[in-house]
Amino acid sequence: MYELHIYQESFDQYLKDKVTSKEPRNLYEPISYILNLGGKRLRPVLLLLVADLFSGKYKNALDAALAVEVFHNFSLVHDDIMDAAPLRRGEATVHEKWDVNTAILSGDAMLINAYRLFENYPDAVFKELATLFSTTAIQVCEGQQYDIDFATMEDVSIAQYIHMIEYKTAVLVGASLQMGAIIAESSVECKTAIYEFGKLLGTAFQIQDDYLDVFGDPIDFGKQVGGDIIENKKTYLYLKALEQADEKNKQQLLHLYSINPVDAKGKIDTVKSLFLQSKADEATKNAIQEYTEKAFSVLEKMDLSEAKKEPLRRFGENLMNRQY
Amino acid sequence: MYELHIYQESFDQYLKDKVTSKEPRNLYEPISYILNLGGKRLRPVLLLLVADLFSGKYKNALDAALAVEVFHNFSLVHDDIMDAAPLRRGEATVHEKWDVNTAILSGDAMLINAYRLFENYPDAVFKELATLFSTTAIQVCEGQQYDIDFATMEDVSIAQYIHMIEYKTAVLVGASLQMGAIIAESSVECKTAIYEFGKLLGTAFQIQDDYLDVFGDPIDFGKQVGGDIIENKKTYLYLKALEQADEKNKQQLLHLYSINPVDAKGKIDTVKSLFLQSKADEATKNAIQEYTEKAFSVLEKMDLSEAKKEPLRRFGENLMNRQY
Repeated sequence: MYELHIYQESFDQYLKDKVTSKEPRNLYEPISYILNLGGKRLRPVLLLLVADLFSGKYKNALDAALAVEVFHNFSLVHDDIMDAAPLRRGEATVHEKWDVNTAILSGDAMLINAYRLFENYPDAVFKELATLFSTTAIQVCEGQQYDIDFATMEDVSIAQYIHMIEYKTAVLVGASLQMGAIIAESSVECKTAIYEFGKLLGTAFQIQDDYLDVFGDPIDFGKQVGGDIIENKKTYLYLKALEQADEKNKQQLLHLYSINPVDAKGKIDTVKSLFLQSKADEATKNAIQEYTEKAFSVLEKMDLSEAKKEPLRRFGENLMNRQY
Repeated sequence: MYELHIYQESFDQYLKDKVTSKEPRNLYEPISYILNLGGKRLRPVLLLLVADLFSGKYKNALDAALAVEVFHNFSLVHDDIMDAAPLRRGEATVHEKWDVNTAILSGDAMLINAYRLFENYPDAVFKELATLFSTTAIQVCEGQQYDIDFATMEDVSIAQYIHMIEYKTAVLVGASLQMGAIIAESSVECKTAIYEFGKLLGTAFQIQDDYLDVFGDPIDFGKQVGGDIIENKKTYLYLKALEQADEKNKQQLLHLYSINPVDAKGKIDTVKSLFLQSKADEATKNAIQEYTEKAFSVLEKMDLSEAKKEPLRRFGENLMNRQY
């Protein structure tokens, strides 16, 4: 029971049935394209798992699961324009395959369609879902704005960075889990705790993303190792290294993050060794561990049978043991 | 009673109180900027008028009025990127004053915030408002897509054009009026009729916009007369002229709409005379008249006292007699 692949297959089938291209073609084809590029379907699977754990049925939650996936992809389409990213999941981004205007407008339609996916729920559930969704969506926008702002800020604190990734990434994981609980008509305590569990796990997940971007196995990781270093991205690793490095290494790191060499190999290697020398790698692994443990301790305290906690714990463990 | 300026002042005060800049500043300042550029506040004023007519109170409708105005301005911010428009209401557009990325993200936040403005209404009213809002918002996106598509299409029929402006402009007018009726908890018949009235009036309004762009008084109109001609925009006037012109004039018009002369005066004058020769101007005035009369006939049939129909009729008449 609680087989994640069942939720994933059920979700993929539902998406295939629901997301079809229609007129005007130029608006709907990009939507169908991006949603069919795949991805881990992390958020919808978690949502369906919680709905199943808390109510014994998950099919009723498919609309909400699709809503969070559509929203997540909306944010990717618009973020990819802002980052001028050519590729997403190994394929051309929407603004590359079509153009920026198409990516703006199709993204807008996705955001609206995410809200529409809640309409089959009863009035009170609809309002609870839509309200949580709006709060979360605004936080994701604010997180994206902080991320943009940090690129040109000289001093970014670890606390500011954590706040940014909480908004940009973690709250949507928390909200996905909470939506499963809302649809299962769980208690307020349960809804609060499951949100917190997801948010902490989402934070750990994002710090791990930063770690894997530098120290991940290039084969497992599936994307260019060192991408964040090339882009001078102020990640957890980088901020910790600045904090912990001696003055000389700190100045070298600051210098390396102010240049954009055509051949980045030398820069990546040096930055990597600075991360190791300053023990930023260890500090980062500790942070991942810390947030994961916080998440599990929230789960532990929940008024839920051990049999129902287990799949959630397993999900968290698998996520934290991933190599990509 | 039913003094529109009272609604407008009340609305402007409400907007001023509600729309304040906060952190992250780069996200919220552009929102505050565009919403404070002014404009006719047509949609919120109509919404408040209907709420007042149907329930005797309008203050309860201020949140919904702000939602439609925020949405309208969201669509302007994103459309202005797509049209590469430098000016809006005589001031720099958001993507000009800041940049395209800012305009995308601030626009997204506006769309989400529009939904949040319904959250103070009871569950059933919230759902009815949010559902109408989503349906309308998607139609506005589709209308914008058709508008983009038409620019590169050779044959656009009058029917296709009307469908486009209905979606891009008219449905939001209809929805604004219907929201006033929803908040007043009016009957289904009443809600349906007031929507239809608004949609027809909105269609007349947009065709009139096309007309005034060419034949409006340059002083009253407040923007460059002939802007649509310079941009080779396939308006009602142009499509009617193509339909009604003789073969020679038709070819000349097609040619003129394929060029972009630096000095547009000659082109504007010739196109104008082709519009007059083909009597497209008369046909356009007839269409405005026709849609306005259809709107009034819907109003006539409504189960509403004459005293309450009168302000709506007056609003329509003023709109149709505008010179700008």
